[in-house]
Amino acid sequence: MPLDDALTALADETRRAILHRLSKGEARVTELAAPFDISLNSVSKHIRILERAGLVKRRVMGRDHFLSFDPQPLHEVGDWVERHRTLWTHRLDALEAALRADDAINAAKKRSSK
Amino acid sequence: MPLDDALTALADETRRAILHRLSKGEARVTELAAPFDISLNSVSKHIRILERAGLVKRRVMGRDHFLSFDPQPLHEVGDWVERHRTLWTHRLDALEAALRADDAINAAKKRSSK
Repeated sequence: MPLDDALTALADETRRAILHRLSKGEARVTELAAPFDISLNSVSKHIRILERAGLVKRRVMGRDHFLSFDPQPLHEVGDWVERHRTLWTHRLDALEAALRADDAINAAKKRSSK
Repeated sequence: MPLDDALTALADETRRAILHRLSKGEARVTELAAPFDISLNSVSKHIRILERAGLVKRRVMGRDHFLSFDPQPLHEVGDWVERHRTLWTHRLDALEAALRADDAINAAKKRSSK
């Protein structure tokens, strides 16, 4: 399930920080690892999870591996989230409209019974 | 890390389906479990993960437990995703502008050397 992979990949602070760095431009694995207080091996594992989710692409030039950000899976995540934020807002709007209609009916009943 | 919990909770098809159902209105655990071909125990575990992430609230009335959707954590997820979709678009725009500027400089150089 691609959406599961993308969300799992995003559910980690280090991986989000790596993506944040890559969203500003391509980088080597060693450059990515530098700001983190973890082993190069750990960083490589995080990168593999991001690659599996399609969030990171790798370009090999001789011994250099360049990593770049691919925002494609973010669109699917963003769409799911937006749809459910919206569904909720619509539900609240509908509820408010129903309550207002109810108030109007009650007010009309009171007037007609006077 | 609340964002980690929300993303982990969302990284499962069954949990997203439960949230989708709840985004349309409150439901009992048994009602939530009905459409899924999994045990009530499994559904309860999924619900606990959603509760821990703050995406689901529980209201207890006697023996009945009513569950409802709380979209609050979705805002933080949505904001992160939107920010990084946007960063990327801005980077592409900047790249395109730089290439266009480069083309313009080259064209000007050609003209002045004629």
